[in-house]
Parts: sequence; structure tokens; C-alpha cells
Amino acid sequence: MTPKLFNPGPVDVSPETFAAMSHTMIGHRGKDFEELYASLQPGLKEIFGTERPVFLSTSSAWGVMEGALRNLARKKVLCLCCGAFSDKWIDVAKKCGFEAEAIQVEWGEAIDPEIVRAKLSEGGFDTVTFIHSETSTGVLNDLAGICAVVKSFPDTILIADTVSSLSTIDIDMDKHGIDVCLAGVQKALALPPGLCVFAVSETAMERAKTIPNRGYYFDFIEFAKNDAANNTPTTPAISLLFGLQYILGEIAKEGFAARKARHAKTNAMIRAWGAKHGFQLFAPEGRRSFALTCFATPETLDLSAFIKALKTKHNFLINGGYGKIKGTTFRISNMGNETEATMQELIDALDDVLAAM
Amino acid sequence: MTPKLFNPGPVDVSPETFAAMSHTMIGHRGKDFEELYASLQPGLKEIFGTERPVFLSTSSAWGVMEGALRNLARKKVLCLCCGAFSDKWIDVAKKCGFEAEAIQVEWGEAIDPEIVRAKLSEGGFDTVTFIHSETSTGVLNDLAGICAVVKSFPDTILIADTVSSLSTIDIDMDKHGIDVCLAGVQKALALPPGLCVFAVSETAMERAKTIPNRGYYFDFIEFAKNDAANNTPTTPAISLLFGLQYILGEIAKEGFAARKARHAKTNAMIRAWGAKHGFQLFAPEGRRSFALTCFATPETLDLSAFIKALKTKHNFLINGGYGKIKGTTFRISNMGNETEATMQELIDALDDVLAAM
Repeated sequence: MTPKLFNPGPVDVSPETFAAMSHTMIGHRGKDFEELYASLQPGLKEIFGTERPVFLSTSSAWGVMEGALRNLARKKVLCLCCGAFSDKWIDVAKKCGFEAEAIQVEWGEAIDPEIVRAKLSEGGFDTVTFIHSETSTGVLNDLAGICAVVKSFPDTILIADTVSSLSTIDIDMDKHGIDVCLAGVQKALALPPGLCVFAVSETAMERAKTIPNRGYYFDFIEFAKNDAANNTPTTPAISLLFGLQYILGEIAKEGFAARKARHAKTNAMIRAWGAKHGFQLFAPEGRRSFALTCFATPETLDLSAFIKALKTKHNFLINGGYGKIKGTTFRISNMGNETEATMQELIDALDDVLAAM
Repeated sequence: MTPKLFNPGPVDVSPETFAAMSHTMIGHRGKDFEELYASLQPGLKEIFGTERPVFLSTSSAWGVMEGALRNLARKKVLCLCCGAFSDKWIDVAKKCGFEAEAIQVEWGEAIDPEIVRAKLSEGGFDTVTFIHSETSTGVLNDLAGICAVVKSFPDTILIADTVSSLSTIDIDMDKHGIDVCLAGVQKALALPPGLCVFAVSETAMERAKTIPNRGYYFDFIEFAKNDAANNTPTTPAISLLFGLQYILGEIAKEGFAARKARHAKTNAMIRAWGAKHGFQLFAPEGRRSFALTCFATPETLDLSAFIKALKTKHNFLINGGYGKIKGTTFRISNMGNETEATMQELIDALDDVLAAM
């Protein structure tokens, strides 16, 4: 039997979401699609905290993470690296042919805005890549602080991945002046993967117009042109958009404030469970995600046996660490549709398995 | 009520396909996913006619159409243009910064392999783009003839889009020596859009290794590296893969030969229906798609009223032409799951509406 995912993405998808996705197929060049597209905008704008249109890319987040560089980078990219995903962005920048440098901090640490200020002061950087919630380490970086620093350097663009923070806490894209804000939908939006939602500031749109060889599939100008007609440049993942319509409806019903409070509460439950067992959090105080929790694996815990027993006995799946901290950390998600009740079920199961070890 | 699509893609998706897609979500970095990935290969290889691995791109076909150029083009691209989609490929090539020339034939005509031979003889081209079944005009180009010509020029790569032909007729990728063969799944595979399946020849893989700045998201080398572990470079559209697993199972049950025969038969029914009413086929004799039919709109037919009445009275949607032949042509799909019985239902409805006009 397929276990329920408490993995930090993809996360469990509800039967109601699948039911919404099973909407009779429609064409994407007609009025039905335009209405579907338009219906998504208010809810997406609310969670991004933007008045800008939110574009729909049929890709994983990496597509737009690369595409944003092709749209915006001129000479040199600064990549803020603090975990598996943020570290990889510099490789992707180089694979596109861009000159790129990293600010590299230890996995488990957050990016200090003042170090970013010092680096940008050296000059030559026109684009900065940044991951808000580094899913591999559970670190929630200082979005406001990083944005303020980058904005203080004229003509420097900030691309922010909010992949496991969007819809769990405030993003405030416009307020902070994020130039490109993007997220995959298989994390806190609890949809199947295959769609990346993103918004682009006016400043970044103006920059994009001046960049040659942007290509087509991720061309921001094409997205904007089609958005004006409530459409997408290429054939979109229509079923996922019906799913997204359902999820945004659920967020509206719950209320964004209540949703954020729910994530804070369910996250606190997992942190408290860990504290009870003396498990150390991998991320530092004050810079911890509210969407997932990353624990350092205690030496006394046989992590593989723990995860396997949880799966076998309770049919729940948590994650045994990613990249170079696989095994030495483990992660539990409270993203998406999880409630206090479902997180308590997980906690009871975790306790049951621990007690038997 | 949402009409049933007889549009040439996306086409109608069956409830059974949606049920398969509603499989409990799984992570993509575990054994369950590897098994899912591996299970797709035999069926995909059969319809492509290849021994090469078939890669799974979370994108529409345009992503791989652009990506193939970034992986393979060196100096100059030749684009074989005969309709809306093949014509657009040269724009995409230029948007990526490649030098590109077109062989442009009238919409509704097929590409003559001998004209391709003459053009390639001028020298300087290293990559050719080609659409097998040009969905906008209903023209089925001469795949074998084009392949033979391109192969006769050393160091020239052929990228073939088989978006509305794959699984309806033989593609024989290996036999014909196609270097990159790609298709979106929302056409003859009758899945929701959001996934492009493609295979790459050894020759093209060797070329890709020599090309700088290929990027990451569509990098063929990354796809090959991950394929070796039954995985994808980035988070894949997992629900669509469960849907694809179901569809490939259905193809195996029906038998590929029987499936091709079904498409030939249902296509013949639509052609015969048109002939009965004196409607002219837009594509020339011998070069007509077996997956969709494009008719020239007779001057006596009020096309908008016809399509609207069909939708209102029978809840079926056919397509009123694409791009510059919108209105002057109309298109009917027989792709995917349509049978003689369901096509007869459509034909009865078409006749009913025509009789009342």
C-alpha cells in the first residue's frame, strides 16, 4: 500500500484535489480556459502578496529558475547558497553560460544579509539567486533582509524561490521588492508536481526586454503577452490548473491568515515532538521553516529502521535527509492540507515506532 | 456542460485515465518512482520504434523543441515550414540566438524531400527541424523521405516532432534514423497536457556533449544520466506518469497494430463523411494525417454557426481552424480513445446539425 507522504514535497494530494483535476478536458484556446486562467489570479496574487499577474509555467520550479536567468542575467550572477537546492543554482547558471559566484554558507545556516551587502559592494553582479525556504535543510532565510540589501544596489535583480514557503507564511513580493518570485505547486499547495507559478516585477520585465536570446519556452515577455489574454504561451497543464483552482478556493474558504496560523501550529507540534525526544533542530533559532522541520539524526537513532518501521506499521513516509546530509538529518513536512488532527496521527505513529526501537 | 473535445489536441481524456492519475502521490526519489519510470519504457519504445531510452520532460512539446536546438544546433538551423507549428519553430530558433533559414511551403502542402536535399546541398546547416504531422493543416509529411535526405548529409541532425502522429501510425525512429523524436501526450495519447516524451539518438547525444551552454532543464545529458537510474533530472509530473502508465497498458491490451488500424478506420469515417457533403480535404492526396482531418470550409457553410450548433445541441466540440486559416478550414480529431462507435456518434451529430442549417 502506497504510504501517505510527510515528505517535504511532493506532499500528499487529497482525493478532492484529484477530483477537481478530473474535470472534463477543455481546449486552451477558448473562453473556458480564459475563465479558468482568470479565476486563479486573485488567489495567487494574495499568497504572493503582489498586484502583478502570476504566470503559469508548465514545468517544475527548475525550469523557471533557469529561465529567470536567461531572461535577466547580463554579466555576472551571485548565487546565495545554503543547501542542496540553492547550491545547485550556481551550477545551472554556469550550464547556461553565465559567469557566477556563490556566497556559500554551511548547510543548516542561513544567509546573512550583511555578507550579501559586502559581496555586492565588490561590484559587477546584476542578478542574485535566492531560496527563501531551503527545503533540504529546513532553513527559512531572511527574505525581508536579503531583499532590502539587494534593492539598495541599483540595477541588481533578485530572483527568489519560495518553493516551500509560499502559502504558509507571508511572502509580500511587492512590499519587499522581489523581482522574480516562483514556486512549484507540489509543496505547500499540495498539488501533484508539473506546474510552477511565478510573478515578475515591472523592473524585471523592463530588463528582460533588453536581454537577447531569452528563448521562447520561459520567455517572460511571451508570458506577459499571453497573460493579457488570460492565456499561456504554450499548451498548459490544464488538469493541474483545475486542481489549483480547487486549492485556491480552499485557501479562500479557510482564509489566508487561518492557513498561516495552521502551518505555524502544526509545525510547532512537530518541533515539540522532537524536543520531547531530545532531537536537535538542524536550522538555527529564528530561521526555521514553518512548512517543514529538519532534525539532526541523533547517534542513538537507527534512522533507516525508524523510517522503515513508520512506513511498514503506519503507512506514513518521512524523509531521511537529502544530498550530503542524507542520513545525518531527517525531515518531516507539515505542508498542504495537514491539520492538527492529521499531524497528531503522525506524531502518535512516530512515538509508537520510537517506543518499539 | 463542458463539451466533449474532438479538437485536435488536447483531446478528450477518459474517466479511467483520470482515475489512474489519481494514484496516491509518491515521492520521485524512491523505489516506487523508479518502478513507475521503468514500467513506461517498453510501451514508449514500441510506439517510437526505438531501442533508445524515452525521456520524460515536464513541459509541453515546445520546451523540448526549443531544448533540442540548445542541445544540438551549432551554426545554422534549417526549419521545414508548412503550417502554424512548423513555421513557429524558426522564430523559436531565432529567439534562442541561432541563425536559421526556412523552407516555406504553402499551408496545406507537404514538404518535398528533394527541396530539402537542394537546400542542404548549399551547405552550412547542421540541424533540421521537422514536424511529421502538422496539426494546423492536417498534412502528414513524408517522414521516411525527409529522414533519408537528411541522413545523406553527414553531421546533420534531424529533430522530428511527432506530436499528432505518435501512436497512430509507425514512427520507426531507429529505422529512419531520427535524431530527436518528440511528442506531447495530450494528442494521440489522450492524456492531459503537461508532459513531453522524447528519445535521442546516440549521434545526437554525442553532439550534445560538445555543445556549450545547453542549460539544465532540457539538457539531454542530464536526462540520460538520470534515465540510467530510472529517474528524471527535475521533479516530474508524477500524476501524468501514472496516467501514461495506464494508457500504455491500454495500448498493450489493444495491440499497437490494432490501434493503428482503429485510427485508420475512424479517420476514414470522417473523410467519408466530408466526401458525402462535398467538403474538400485541405491536405493533398497521400499526405493526409490519420489522426485528424482538416477540411476547407465551403463558402456555403456558416462555420461558426455550425460549430456552435454542434456544441449547443450535441455537446461536441470540433475546431474552427488555426492561425491564418482560422475560419477557412475546420478540423476534427480521431485521436486517442475514439472508436468507430464514438466517431459514429459524432458523425450523426454533425449530420443532424448540417441538416438543420
